[in-house]
Amino acid sequence: MTALASIKNQDIAALMRDMGIKARKAALELAQVPSEPKISALKAAAAKLRDNADAILAANAKDMEAGRAKGLTDALLDRLALDPARIEGMAAGIEAVAELPDPIGRELARWSPEHNGLDIARVSVPLGVIGIIYESRPNVTADASAMCIKSGNAAILRGGSESFHSSRAIFDCMAEGIAKAGLPDNAIQMIPTTDRAAVGEMLKLSDYIDVIVPRGGKSLIARITDESRIPLFKHLEGLCHTYVHASANPQKAVDIVVNAKMRRVGVCGSTETILIDSSVAGRLLPRIAEALVAKGCELRGDDIAQSIDGHIKPATDEDWVTEYLDAIVSIKVVNGVTDAVNHINTYGSHHTDAIIAENAAATTTFMNGVDSGIVIVNASTQFADGGEFGMGAEIGISTGKLHARGPVGVEQLTSYKYIVRGTGQTRP
Amino acid sequence: MTALASIKNQDIAALMRDMGIKARKAALELAQVPSEPKISALKAAAAKLRDNADAILAANAKDMEAGRAKGLTDALLDRLALDPARIEGMAAGIEAVAELPDPIGRELARWSPEHNGLDIARVSVPLGVIGIIYESRPNVTADASAMCIKSGNAAILRGGSESFHSSRAIFDCMAEGIAKAGLPDNAIQMIPTTDRAAVGEMLKLSDYIDVIVPRGGKSLIARITDESRIPLFKHLEGLCHTYVHASANPQKAVDIVVNAKMRRVGVCGSTETILIDSSVAGRLLPRIAEALVAKGCELRGDDIAQSIDGHIKPATDEDWVTEYLDAIVSIKVVNGVTDAVNHINTYGSHHTDAIIAENAAATTTFMNGVDSGIVIVNASTQFADGGEFGMGAEIGISTGKLHARGPVGVEQLTSYKYIVRGTGQTRP
Repeated sequence: MTALASIKNQDIAALMRDMGIKARKAALELAQVPSEPKISALKAAAAKLRDNADAILAANAKDMEAGRAKGLTDALLDRLALDPARIEGMAAGIEAVAELPDPIGRELARWSPEHNGLDIARVSVPLGVIGIIYESRPNVTADASAMCIKSGNAAILRGGSESFHSSRAIFDCMAEGIAKAGLPDNAIQMIPTTDRAAVGEMLKLSDYIDVIVPRGGKSLIARITDESRIPLFKHLEGLCHTYVHASANPQKAVDIVVNAKMRRVGVCGSTETILIDSSVAGRLLPRIAEALVAKGCELRGDDIAQSIDGHIKPATDEDWVTEYLDAIVSIKVVNGVTDAVNHINTYGSHHTDAIIAENAAATTTFMNGVDSGIVIVNASTQFADGGEFGMGAEIGISTGKLHARGPVGVEQLTSYKYIVRGTGQTRP
Repeated sequence: MTALASIKNQDIAALMRDMGIKARKAALELAQVPSEPKISALKAAAAKLRDNADAILAANAKDMEAGRAKGLTDALLDRLALDPARIEGMAAGIEAVAELPDPIGRELARWSPEHNGLDIARVSVPLGVIGIIYESRPNVTADASAMCIKSGNAAILRGGSESFHSSRAIFDCMAEGIAKAGLPDNAIQMIPTTDRAAVGEMLKLSDYIDVIVPRGGKSLIARITDESRIPLFKHLEGLCHTYVHASANPQKAVDIVVNAKMRRVGVCGSTETILIDSSVAGRLLPRIAEALVAKGCELRGDDIAQSIDGHIKPATDEDWVTEYLDAIVSIKVVNGVTDAVNHINTYGSHHTDAIIAENAAATTTFMNGVDSGIVIVNASTQFADGGEFGMGAEIGISTGKLHARGPVGVEQLTSYKYIVRGTGQTRP
């Protein structure tokens, strides 16, 4: 791989265009590769990661040192840090992706219109070239590469500058796996510079990149949305709600709400707002509040909620649109399922929302009415995860409605083509 | 409906935003509407179109008069013109859409991961709000509205200024059908001004419009691609190829090529370039050339093609990337299927490409290698059409790979949500 220093003097636009051309060529070849070599490449990459653990940890130590010097927060440093267990986790993750069913070449449908006798099949194919733009987590290098290879897509990776050396070391292992299995050379490329201009140039390459997957915080997503001429699989925030209906089983309500908020507060599927029916709030809210406070959660609520339980501080309008990703929850008392659905569709992020209810009519109204990718009945919003869905690894959870909604696994990284077999038909 | 004159003084941005808000609200309601009222609305709209044929023809006469005064070409005037048969065609088209299976609320998949016992279903839902931007064909008003209603999507229509009065008259019939069946008031809205600034404002409404469908020529698509902050279902040009392999049945080759090029030269599925294997060109190309010339087709070819048949004039590099939409075809002699696939992937538009061959290995290489939405074996490229595929009406043929590829029918105007039914599960 070209050294970083020599790249810095090159024309970034020309570099990116060249990477785009190479990726498109690799994608056309990769689309023809059967299952076995893809599996071999992934297994070889996993083995390489384990073999090269020391080199990866050394590269990571450089990034950590630079990160500390730069004054990164503890949370960011934790995202950046690798240790033997995390490297083993990456390797195992790659092997799990290798074992998934091949999403390419599946006959999704096949039929023959009577009036023309054509034999029409819809067959899954790779999307082509996927651009992955991510921030400080170096493991994305392994996860995203593995998913792209499995789904026959070429990838151009752009990691965060904080994790540059770690990502490079991981990328080298992936590249060796690809080479060992004889997959196209440029199946996975990593942008060899941390210059921010490279992202701008990348987002212009609509002739060479089919979709961009941004993995990062709000400001990264906002910048990419604004600049990109390439479609995105957008993973916006997870402003998830859990609604406690009047018919809720009280114990389920307490258990689910506490888990949905507090199991892990930093994941996108964590509940940020609790909605509770006014008819049961007086009796149920104190139980829920007590259980949350016992777990260290701060409570903010509307006037009625505050009047019911003394732990609840005032919420402002800002609270209904805030993804805390922290041990804080907002609470609103509502008047029935329609009121709850309206609140969610107005303030939510179309990610994951749950109802706790025993009444079937209320459940149906909620399932149909909530305009979110995942709607859950009587379970924790923290199940919003491709692995929990049995879909394997996910590259993100899409909050958009086009192409992929909800967990984006290897199946969602595909398109299709129509194969039409005739016997000499001409159209009248 | 507000009169045109009064709108002109309004703030276009405010007008468009207001339409967006109304559309989003209507979309949330429309998503809950079962099959029957949607069918009733479409049938009532079709009846209204027939009843109001005179008023529609009178509105069309105004547009035609203005078009002639403006010096529109005969081809454009023909696209604009309505007559009783075309109105009946629109009404019948709406009824055909009404009769399609409802694409909403279908359970696309359902499973239960063993480790958590959740019951997970993927269920089809409408996309939400669809913006349709079209040019001079007033029938798009009826076709697109009908497809949006059937698929539970709200729509904002923006017709071309040339067809403004005709489209308005058709729109009024659609709106009456919607009102009669009790569907939400703003399920279908039409922008009540021909001001071009309205399109610019529309393309900014990413909070209110989920996808834009542009229906028109290259310059319209280019402008929309450049300006839109909303994803597009892009229908680029149909630069379709028919490749005659060495193993082709000669009579099939002649019949299919002539049909693919000459049945209708102005449709996107018409073949623009013929590729023919060098080993059979000497024997087969003169037969194909003669048959095309007899139908009035102009032939342009590379040096070898010219040396084989005297009808063939020189082709320039420009010819390989030109969608003639006319009785002209370019001809290139190639050396086998890989050469043909490379030409198509380099110069084509990823729309529809065909191979004429009896050899199964060549056919497989072609089907797998050509990176187009539709790949046809031994049949005419003019079958590239949602109706011929048995998919019913189409809103276009997508040359993109995301969400919808190939014919975009009512099924492609849907997204999905995950419905997760639990029994009190919390995530460990």
